[in-house]
Amino acid sequence: MGFLDYFRSSPRNTASVAKERLQIIVAHERRRSPAGPDFLPMLQKDLLDVVRKYIPIDEDQIKLSIERNGDCEVLELNIALSEGQGQR
Amino acid sequence: MGFLDYFRSSPRNTASVAKERLQIIVAHERRRSPAGPDFLPMLQKDLLDVVRKYIPIDEDQIKLSIERNGDCEVLELNIALSEGQGQR
Repeated sequence: MGFLDYFRSSPRNTASVAKERLQIIVAHERRRSPAGPDFLPMLQKDLLDVVRKYIPIDEDQIKLSIERNGDCEVLELNIALSEGQGQR
Repeated sequence: MGFLDYFRSSPRNTASVAKERLQIIVAHERRRSPAGPDFLPMLQKDLLDVVRKYIPIDEDQIKLSIERNGDCEVLELNIALSEGQGQR
């Protein structure tokens, strides 16, 4: 699983390490061009609602991006948590 | 972000390319050991419920894993879609 390799090899001495973080990546790979709008933009609100069931997060804690590369669309949510905020 | 580089550099000639796919990665990075159980296992059902709002998926289309590496816990959902299933 290449993704786990990515996490394992991430540099640990960056500023982002100073805080807890929650990262959500959704990749939708399709063989053909989409006939209509993708559902990933709609998914982003739903995903945040799900996370908020467990951790209270403010809008300013969230960085969001959607990128397309050929037939692959990737939604990325980066949520910076205060220390201890992710503990339950 | 490095994740997009990962997608861009993914080999395209593997069996998984033969189908559409949806991949969801949730990484929770913490500075301290958790005081209690993590919320990622609970999150997995919620995430599938969210995806099912947009795409009907069966249990046998889903591969799920949760791995821990030090203070980083990663939930990975791989959903194999039939051709055209991800189009709306």
